[in-house]
Order: sequence, then structure tokens, then C-alpha cells
Amino acid sequence: MSAKRLILNLFEMSTPTHITHGLWRLPGNNRHRYTDIGYWQELAVLLEEGGFDAVFLADVVGAYDVYRDGFDDALREGLQIPNTDPLLVVPAMAAVTRRLGFGVTFSTSYEPPFAFARRMSTLDHLTRGRVGWNVVTSYLPNAARNFGLADEIPHDERYEIAEEYLDVLYKLWEGSWDDDAVVRDATGGVYSDPTKVRRIDHVGRRFRVAGPHLSEPSPQRTPVLFQATASPAGIALAGRHAEVVFTGTWGGPIRPTVEAIRRSAVEQGRAASDIKVLVQASVFVAPTDDEARATYARYRAYRSEIGRYVHSSTPFDPTLHDPSATVGQALAAEGRESGLVPPSLRRMTVAQYSEAVDEAWNERFQAIGNPARVADTIERWLEEDGIDGINLRQYHSFDTALGFARLATPELRRRGLLPPADEPPATLRERVFGAGPRLPDSHPARRYRNGRSL
Amino acid sequence: MSAKRLILNLFEMSTPTHITHGLWRLPGNNRHRYTDIGYWQELAVLLEEGGFDAVFLADVVGAYDVYRDGFDDALREGLQIPNTDPLLVVPAMAAVTRRLGFGVTFSTSYEPPFAFARRMSTLDHLTRGRVGWNVVTSYLPNAARNFGLADEIPHDERYEIAEEYLDVLYKLWEGSWDDDAVVRDATGGVYSDPTKVRRIDHVGRRFRVAGPHLSEPSPQRTPVLFQATASPAGIALAGRHAEVVFTGTWGGPIRPTVEAIRRSAVEQGRAASDIKVLVQASVFVAPTDDEARATYARYRAYRSEIGRYVHSSTPFDPTLHDPSATVGQALAAEGRESGLVPPSLRRMTVAQYSEAVDEAWNERFQAIGNPARVADTIERWLEEDGIDGINLRQYHSFDTALGFARLATPELRRRGLLPPADEPPATLRERVFGAGPRLPDSHPARRYRNGRSL
Repeated sequence: MSAKRLILNLFEMSTPTHITHGLWRLPGNNRHRYTDIGYWQELAVLLEEGGFDAVFLADVVGAYDVYRDGFDDALREGLQIPNTDPLLVVPAMAAVTRRLGFGVTFSTSYEPPFAFARRMSTLDHLTRGRVGWNVVTSYLPNAARNFGLADEIPHDERYEIAEEYLDVLYKLWEGSWDDDAVVRDATGGVYSDPTKVRRIDHVGRRFRVAGPHLSEPSPQRTPVLFQATASPAGIALAGRHAEVVFTGTWGGPIRPTVEAIRRSAVEQGRAASDIKVLVQASVFVAPTDDEARATYARYRAYRSEIGRYVHSSTPFDPTLHDPSATVGQALAAEGRESGLVPPSLRRMTVAQYSEAVDEAWNERFQAIGNPARVADTIERWLEEDGIDGINLRQYHSFDTALGFARLATPELRRRGLLPPADEPPATLRERVFGAGPRLPDSHPARRYRNGRSL
Repeated sequence: MSAKRLILNLFEMSTPTHITHGLWRLPGNNRHRYTDIGYWQELAVLLEEGGFDAVFLADVVGAYDVYRDGFDDALREGLQIPNTDPLLVVPAMAAVTRRLGFGVTFSTSYEPPFAFARRMSTLDHLTRGRVGWNVVTSYLPNAARNFGLADEIPHDERYEIAEEYLDVLYKLWEGSWDDDAVVRDATGGVYSDPTKVRRIDHVGRRFRVAGPHLSEPSPQRTPVLFQATASPAGIALAGRHAEVVFTGTWGGPIRPTVEAIRRSAVEQGRAASDIKVLVQASVFVAPTDDEARATYARYRAYRSEIGRYVHSSTPFDPTLHDPSATVGQALAAEGRESGLVPPSLRRMTVAQYSEAVDEAWNERFQAIGNPARVADTIERWLEEDGIDGINLRQYHSFDTALGFARLATPELRRRGLLPPADEPPATLRERVFGAGPRLPDSHPARRYRNGRSL
């Protein structure tokens, strides 16, 4: 019996193909129903009953267009295009659930913070405090060109923008309204007490925002802050801001990254336990090991090679080269700069590269077998790798989540890795940290409480 | 029996006080529940059962801060602050309805068109084609300062921006994806046919947007285009773009405005019937005239004088002056410029001004009485005033809508003014125009169809 609690999210995106390229073609897969409100409501009920903490919704605001110099392959693969806005499926799912959380991706790169602040407060109200925000900075060149820019914003500048963006949001979410501002005094005719609401008057390098925030305080105020990162700049940002970090390696050991993330938090005056660390994981569970392996093999036959090149923005065409040639040779043969691919990948053969860039079939966090075997494997990740939870990859919608819910969840509950089914509803932050609904005092956003430091 | 069909919308906003100042204090009023998903779902079911075509959701992205030089009174009145984002309540309502439409207000002034295009396509998918967009340009000075500007954008410039904003959206909604672009060919491994999807490469004075649109074609593509206006610049924009115009006068005859709107459409090569005209209206209906009048009197006792000054951005303080003084005198006494108030209002007494600025109690479109009397009055508006429908003002949530649904709707259905309860579900455009789900060929957006004119 492990004392550690598993954070269990489903990794999802409102699009035909998210990360499991080619698998929309699997018989019975519901991925083409992503525009249907019923898809999201069925999924939400299934996840809540299956003990999932949250559905983690990825997003992009442009098309992948590096591989073969265009987005034709992305369209053919249904690879993250077409897609729809992830924020708008949350209210539909919230309406049919009471416990499930929602981690929504939104980029700090292109849209005004004032409007986004209200959107997240609205979601936090409508979900009764079950919303998280996956803070990302945008990287797709096509996305930049959809928002008036000539090309993507340089990496360091994106992080500078993100820092100020977060600061504006914290002022609005934490500092603009006091907890007791809304009095609803019908006799005195006072809805809100104006002495407890204030402008933020933010004037920074990038943003000028007056306020006040338009939304009254929501259950969590600041949504649970997710961040997906593995880069040094990302880890520095996470140490300061993130509550849940979604990270990964490409096959190597994860522990150094986990430790770097926790160390970064401590360096910022926070506790190592203030950050939960998640990884992407695959779980193929069935009543018997043989059946689980058969499902794995059946799904794997639907992989799309082109899909993985599109998704990894491969800057050459592996299909044109001898699989035993190196990537460096392939780049040279196409007359492309070697710097387009990092040295570690450049030294690989084309065949090795092709496997390395396909995260969904990476064997590092992969559990295949009967419920006990799968639970043993997950328990080992928690103990040996030092992670706190997983974003479960979907290969088949809804069979992947359904299989986990029916077979893995009962076993994980027996072992105390997941809370019992009758755990009372709570906010996402309470659920993840077992503490209150608001950010802890150690978080930098809290310095704005009651309008201080504004 | 009238041949004309009434378009019936509820006028709503996600805030304690929208236009009926002070009435949140009415016993049993649910307005304080605006942050609760249950509020929106109960309301939606009630409206659908009551034969409403749509709920029309107003919005502001700043606080009213002209009256008494600040937003303290707006806060005390709960007047459009606090509020939440109207787009996000639509999926919750869509989940429990099949016929009800949603007219959502969004301003062209501050947020990037590319992101908004996807939001509306997402809503059109999730609602199965039941969404409309109320196109507004923002006017609150505080709103401008929330989005990095020093002051509001001048009126004419706002309309120039709106024109280009609409053009970008039309290209994305109508031109970027062909109807048959999504093929979902599992055998061939083709989700979308790239020969039928294209960038828009918009380069204009204000916006540069590459595309392609991220969303596949939704049932209506372009949402039903609502516009609220009575100004000459607004009517010109409406003649070119709007399908439903929400207009008003301050007590005077409406017919000249209705005719100006239809004339504007004809001047742009559209049909006069391509635009439906709505007005704000009050309906107090009860089994007997006496009961209806009693409800009216009871509600009216809760009016807030301060609320109407906040909402109308009154640039002086009527509570400090003799009610028989003129507004011009009051302005002079406060040392304020006379030009802050239009001449027609400046000549009024302070007492007259105070009534004139309170639209919610204006008697022009007001029906009070038993079901037959109310239906007679509404029928007269349709025939004599030449309007097509109403945005029903709410005085009490949900009693106003409930009373209409239970008492007025059956009478209006008997007269053929509202369709029968078992009318099959359809898109909002089909419901309003009795034609197809897409914009008619006479609309300027349609020139981008299949990528032509891009």
C-alpha cells in the first residue's frame, strides 16, 4: 500500500488527431465526434465515474506546416486541424459532473490578458472551482501569422511576455476584489461594497490594464496553474508560478527533471511539494496480459508515419532516405541546414529518428497488462521516478479511458492510490493538494491579496 | 390571424443588474445566481418550452464610470459589474435544449479576429447551428483602458475597424474550407482534403491574418449576424452586414428607423426582407388586467434612480438639482460643458431627463394586461410599427419569462404569431428566416465561397 496519491488526468484535445497519429481510423473510434457536445458530455461522465481528477485539454492556434513545407499533411492526418476552442467544451462537461477538473491550455502570446482573466473566472464560477490553466507560450510559426506577426516570437521574449501576462492576471484575480466585496444587501441596495473593489492600474513593458476585474471572486480565484515544460527557461518559470508541471523526456530518466523542477520552486521560496509533476503515459489494461498485449498490437498497426513527422515539425522528409542513413546525411542530401535538427537527433539513423519523435509509442511510461500488473507499474513510477501523476494518452476514444476506468481504477483504489468513489466534491486545487481552494501564501500571486502591492 | 411571425428573444446579461436598475432586490429574483450554471440551464429550458427563439446576451468589457466620476455607484447597483463572459454560458444552455438560439454580444474593438472566429465556429458546432453574434463596437472609456488604450476609440474609427474585422471573419468562416473538405476516408487515411482548404492571407490596414481557419465548416458557417444600432453609421454598417437589427427610439415613432434600416439593405444590393428588426419591449401579462397592473406597480416600486444615471453615463448629478431646473442649468451649476449632453436632452427638466434615460420603464413598447390584450398589443407593433420581433426585458428572473411562456405564448401560438411547440429543431438562421442554414447569396460574405475573391 503506497501512501502516495496518483493524480490521474486524461490527455485530450478537441481535434481528430491529437498525439496518436493515424488512430482516428480505428474501428469504433469516436474522435470524429469532437465537434459534438454529446462527445464531451459522455466523456466527462465516464471520467468522473472512473475516478479521473481532470481532463487536460491541449490546444494550438495554428497549423503544423514545417514538414514538407506546408499544412497539407496535417490536414490529411486530421492532425490538430481541424480543431475547436477548448474553453468552450468545459461548461458542457461541467454541467454533467461534480468532481471532474478541467485543465485548459491557453497561450500568453497573442490575446489580451484582461479578456482571458474574465474567461477563466467565468469557468471557475460555472465549474464551482474545478478549472486549471495550462500556461503555454506559442511556438507554431503559422500561429504567429494568424495574429498579425511575421513569424514566431523568439523563445526568451515569449517567456518575458508570459511573466508580465501572469502578473496582470494575478492582480485581477487576487487583488482587485476582496473576499467580502459582494454583500448583496437588498435592504440597503448595495450589491458590492465599492471600498473593497479596486482598479489594478497595471503599467508594464507589454501591457497596460486599468481594471477593476469584471468578475467577482470565484471559488479558486486563480485557476490551478499547469505548465508543460522541460526546458531551462520553462523550468525557471514553473518554479515561480506552476502548481502542476507536465513534463517528459524522450526515453531517458525523468528523475533529474523532476528534481530540477522542485529545486526551482525552492529557489523561489516555495516548498518542493508546492509543485506536482505529471508525465504522459500509456496504459493498455485488460483482464489478462495477453488481451492487453493484443490490444496494444492491434492499435499499433494503425500508426501513421507521416503523422509523426508533421507533429514533430520534421524539417526534412525521412520517407525519401535510406533508413540506415543518418539524419545529418539526409539533411545534407536535401540541401537543408544541419542546425534545423538538434545534434542528439542528427546523429541518429533515419529509422531511429522516426521512432524517437513519436512520443505516443515511447516505451518509457507505458504499462501493458492485467489490472495488478498495470497498477504495479504505475506505483513504480510514483515511487522510483518521483512523479505525482499521469496524463493518460488516448489511443481509442472512449475505449482507452473506459478500460482504465473499469479495470485499473478499482485496483488503484484498493491500493489507496486513488481516492474512493464517494469522496465529496471539491475544487480542483483541494483535490490535487488536499488543502484549501486558494493559492498558498507562498505563491507570488498572493502578494496582491486585498489590493496590497498593487 | 396575422401572417407575420414574431421573433421572440429574451434580453439577458450575465450580471446582477442589466437594464432594470434596482430590481435585483425584488423578492424571489434569481439574478444573484448569474454565476451558477444551474441558473442558465433552468432559464434555457424555460425559454425553449416557452417558444422563445433565442436568448440575446448583452455584454460590456469595462465598468460604467462617468456618473459621479467613478464606478462606485455601478458596484453598489450591481450594474453590469460584476459580470461573466457570455460566450461561456452558451454550451451549458445548448446541452439542455434543441431549438433555442443564442445571440451573443462580442466587440470588434479589442480582441484578435482569428481567435474569435474559432470561438464562434466552436459554438456553432456545439449548438448545432443555433448561434448568433451581436456585432458591437465598444464605447466605455474604462473598457479601452482595460485593453491598453488611453481612451475610447473614436466613433468613426471603431466602425472602420468593425468593417475590416468582419471581412477577416467572412474569409475564415466562408472562404477557408469548402463544404466537402472533410472527407474522413479511413481506408485512404485522409481526414480533410487539402485541395479544399486554404489560407486567407488577409493583409489590411488593421489586421494581418494568414489562416487557414482552424475549424471545419459549422452548420451555419457565419453565425446569424445581429447588430444593435440606431445611429447613421450603425445603420450603414447594418445595411451591408446585419441580418437582425436590434434598434430603438427614446419614445418617438420607430417606423422611420425601421424603414431607414431596410432602405440601407436595399442600397447595398440586399432585399428589404433580408433584415429583421427587433425592439426592446416590456410585457407584464397575468390572467387578468388588474393582476398584470398590480405586478407592474409592485416591480416599479423597486426602481433605482442612481442605477439609471450610472447606466446612461449621466455627466452631472441630477440628485443635487431642483427637478424643475433644466439639464442645461444643472450642467452649468456644476461647471460642466453643455456639450456633454445632446441638445434634445439638455432642454428637458431634470425630472423629465430622469425618466427619459430609463429605457426599461419607457412606455413606447410596453404591453400590460391579460393574454389577449398583450397579444393584441404585440400584434399591433408588428403591423403598425413594421418591426419583426422583440427582445423581452426581464424585470424578475425567472417570473418575467415564465409569465410570458405560460400566458402569452399560448395566445400568440393560437394567432399564428409563434410557431407550434412541436416545430422540428433547426438552425437559428432557418428559424428566423424560414430558409437555409447558410447566409443568402446576396450577403457580402458569400463572395468568398470556395475561396473565390480571397
